[in-house]
Amino acid sequence: MAKSISSVQNPLIKQLVLLKEKSRQRKKSGQFLIEGKRELSLAIKGGYSIESLLFFPDLFSESEAKAMSSYDVEIIEISKEVFQKLAHRDTTEGVIAVVNTKKHTLDHLKLTSKNPLILVAEAPEKPGNIGALLRTADAANVDAVIIANPKSDLYNPNIIRSSVGCVFTTEIAMASSEEAIAFLKRYNFNIYSAILQESKPYHTQDYTLPTAVVVGTEATGLTQEWRDAATQNISIPMQGVIDSMNVSVAAGILIFEAKRQRDFK
Amino acid sequence: MAKSISSVQNPLIKQLVLLKEKSRQRKKSGQFLIEGKRELSLAIKGGYSIESLLFFPDLFSESEAKAMSSYDVEIIEISKEVFQKLAHRDTTEGVIAVVNTKKHTLDHLKLTSKNPLILVAEAPEKPGNIGALLRTADAANVDAVIIANPKSDLYNPNIIRSSVGCVFTTEIAMASSEEAIAFLKRYNFNIYSAILQESKPYHTQDYTLPTAVVVGTEATGLTQEWRDAATQNISIPMQGVIDSMNVSVAAGILIFEAKRQRDFK
Repeated sequence: MAKSISSVQNPLIKQLVLLKEKSRQRKKSGQFLIEGKRELSLAIKGGYSIESLLFFPDLFSESEAKAMSSYDVEIIEISKEVFQKLAHRDTTEGVIAVVNTKKHTLDHLKLTSKNPLILVAEAPEKPGNIGALLRTADAANVDAVIIANPKSDLYNPNIIRSSVGCVFTTEIAMASSEEAIAFLKRYNFNIYSAILQESKPYHTQDYTLPTAVVVGTEATGLTQEWRDAATQNISIPMQGVIDSMNVSVAAGILIFEAKRQRDFK
Repeated sequence: MAKSISSVQNPLIKQLVLLKEKSRQRKKSGQFLIEGKRELSLAIKGGYSIESLLFFPDLFSESEAKAMSSYDVEIIEISKEVFQKLAHRDTTEGVIAVVNTKKHTLDHLKLTSKNPLILVAEAPEKPGNIGALLRTADAANVDAVIIANPKSDLYNPNIIRSSVGCVFTTEIAMASSEEAIAFLKRYNFNIYSAILQESKPYHTQDYTLPTAVVVGTEATGLTQEWRDAATQNISIPMQGVIDSMNVSVAAGILIFEAKRQRDFK
């Protein structure tokens, strides 16, 4: 029989609520929560190690829990009350895992392709935008995503949810813009910084060599560092009355132009 | 001196709260609310007629209100309490307008270009996605957006906000998918329906003739009608672990491939 917890006052549960809510707690403990079967499967696929797995038996069976776990994962049955306290979403599948975070420094980035394509997003703020960027990165199978000057941790429940779990399967590094630029230059990447001013239309450039496509925030764009570091500043011709585009849409257009030029190889 | 309303119990204010909150009320009255200077300017630019303009004098002056109005607009000073009751956003500029809706039938669509490019979105649900679609349509300066089988009215405050007001300057029609298909066929559009199955990679197709790019919902894709009506079904090659993309990102990639082929003319 699995261990069982029914009280929301249980010290472990209190700690897990902090993990769900506080970025600081996630950083301190090196752990975070994953909710839902699909997200959990993708985390396992992405090589994350599970510490413990909590299931609410009305929605998720103990045998399912065991099937998703290796021998050293603690399996805990929880009450409806505890489940509702820990769950982030309305509709969910009765399973929540405590998972160990990974290191996301540039050193840990695995680039296996000879001709990599990297998406760099500087200081993205909204979890929904980060999720959409990661979904684009996944669809395009880019070699890595670098989040430069990050504003939040990667394991925010809203990022996990809006990325549909591909935050776990995408190669992701987080670093200062300075470090990211040094990294890209060291490995001879062409850097294409998306800015409106003093730039060339994106579709006139060649992305078939090792390429980093760099996008900034909707509010302030890219910092000067990226403008200076660029092989070429690029822009999407804007022919409308408003002068901005959703950052994940812009990234999609640029990344898929690179993919098109590479014939989706 | 402008008329002044300080009580949230005022019958007009109660009615405006309904306008803000209820699609049904907007439909019934043919009016809706716009909040913020930028959005209001774009509505004026888009030819919307303003019925009345409410301003909270600590944030917006009566002379500014007059400058934004024609002679037949009723100008009303409101108290902080009334303003907060009507305002949809946290940060705002002290101005709210009551505006007359437009007709959005296909008959009302103005297509001036000889070689139009139209974005069709079938049954988009999330206001944020509709807003992002409209921003993409604006940036690409498409000739029109058709919302097929609409799920919500266009004047939902979240659509206005997430479109940054370009909902007012974009040519938009709403119709059943059946009507939209009949319209596009009547005017000899090539219809490119975005679906994953039995489709050709989007970048292998020619979008230089009159073109409609059609996207469906993330959950269920396009209905059979659009698959059957398509000149060609197209898809964005998906090379990742998850099999979906944000609908506004997908639309951006497809529309800008069409723009690229048309050399952004």
